Amino acid sequence: MEHGEIQILRSIEEARSFTKERPLGLVPTMGYLHEGHISLVRRAREECATVIVSVFVNPLQFGSGEDFTRYPRDPERDTALAKEAGADAMFMPEAAELYPEGFATEVRVQTVEDVLEGAARPGHFAGVATVLVKLLNIVSPQRIYMGQKDAQQAFLVGRMIQDLNFPTRIVVCPTIRESDGLAMSSRNVYLTREERSAATIIPRALFAARDTGSTDPRVLEETVREAMAAEPLVALEYVFANDAATLEPVGSKTGEILLSLAARVGKTRLIDNILVKR
Amino acid sequence: MEHGEIQILRSIEEARSFTKERPLGLVPTMGYLHEGHISLVRRAREECATVIVSVFVNPLQFGSGEDFTRYPRDPERDTALAKEAGADAMFMPEAAELYPEGFATEVRVQTVEDVLEGAARPGHFAGVATVLVKLLNIVSPQRIYMGQKDAQQAFLVGRMIQDLNFPTRIVVCPTIRESDGLAMSSRNVYLTREERSAATIIPRALFAARDTGSTDPRVLEETVREAMAAEPLVALEYVFANDAATLEPVGSKTGEILLSLAARVGKTRLIDNILVKR
Repeated sequence: MEHGEIQILRSIEEARSFTKERPLGLVPTMGYLHEGHISLVRRAREECATVIVSVFVNPLQFGSGEDFTRYPRDPERDTALAKEAGADAMFMPEAAELYPEGFATEVRVQTVEDVLEGAARPGHFAGVATVLVKLLNIVSPQRIYMGQKDAQQAFLVGRMIQDLNFPTRIVVCPTIRESDGLAMSSRNVYLTREERSAATIIPRALFAARDTGSTDPRVLEETVREAMAAEPLVALEYVFANDAATLEPVGSKTGEILLSLAARVGKTRLIDNILVKR
Repeated sequence: MEHGEIQILRSIEEARSFTKERPLGLVPTMGYLHEGHISLVRRAREECATVIVSVFVNPLQFGSGEDFTRYPRDPERDTALAKEAGADAMFMPEAAELYPEGFATEVRVQTVEDVLEGAARPGHFAGVATVLVKLLNIVSPQRIYMGQKDAQQAFLVGRMIQDLNFPTRIVVCPTIRESDGLAMSSRNVYLTREERSAATIIPRALFAARDTGSTDPRVLEETVREAMAAEPLVALEYVFANDAATLEPVGSKTGEILLSLAARVGKTRLIDNILVKR
């Protein structure tokens, strides 16, 4: 496939017939692409004959009262950025294309959906798992690229791919951060200038915890709590140190710790995490 | 592929690498094959280049107190019968091959799972939907063959295939009956001679309802109830007349009615149904 051109696919049928060149890499996104997404597209470009980027703000994974309607959208800019990074096609379906009337099927990954973001956002991960099964069936990629920023989402998708025998490999890529440490997120656009500045406490708190050198989950969590308490504009929602390989509590077999948190900065809810070696 | 030989596949990898000749037809079964299953294999043989029969007594779709452990099994006879009917391969995995430790994903089809067999057997259809997603991903068939005898199961799988965008067509084949009308079922082997004779009230009651010429759901249901009340060895569990296209209550748009029932004959639970034109 000649690079430099990009195709816009809007129907399931177009997406199916496009996805013939193998290996095929899928980068699933909700659009409003930033450097984090772009790093996934570049990695896919290096490894795959064909790269398809999906842009779909999936209503199923938003709870009532969450930011579905105001979630930022800019499909033209997304297309230009993805093309620049080497994508061959954008899959940008309407919601009615993916969820026609009478849609009734739900995919859930038990236990994973009950902790961390799953506990904070009931139904969120069922929405994620369901749309991912659909995208995997429509696109049939050999590889799917996701970011470590959404660590639990990547964990859930990996588990689901394994459990349901999809012939797809998940590639989890590192979190991309702004120069002051804030993790790239489409939601950062919500922040006022003051909030944007205050939000840097999130990565600073995580790095401070890692810098203690401790691998005691309570020390890691408490270090984050104390650091964040110093910033009145940021309200910590949760912080947990879990076994990164299972998302279960840290135990004697834990090799790497996932230290993850959610926090409110004004009306904006942000998540971040780091891995701590043990 | 040369017919007359049949391959036994036990691992997911064997099944994946076998299923290359297209179109491919899958006949999913729990084994202990009877003429109903065989009719599916023959239909698949007529329509497909390659036919694979899966035999798997799926623990997920049995409730506690149901007949999982005593469900009849005879893999050698199944293999001989499927070969005779033209199958190219049997996929006969162990439960640990499909559900390794840590398995946590569940597929559900809402609303469908709450009526008829779904209401009577909580969790049953989640087990069916989950194993079918796995089989579809492992075998990647263009066509899947299922029996009208399990009408709600076929409906659920059709809905799930559509909702999750599997590139697979479901082919629903007519119920095959014994000469006295009893629907073929692997569970018929449980019946004593006396129970086997009494069980013929099930199809007789269904046909009597259709023979009334009525399309009033209450008349159809009441006719079945009355006919079955005359047989003390058979206890009706439920009978419902639903819109066959939606499984919802019969309404002004209903084209065909699904008249379905479950009944206990001694310790054995049997289901049956007929379609009534409107």
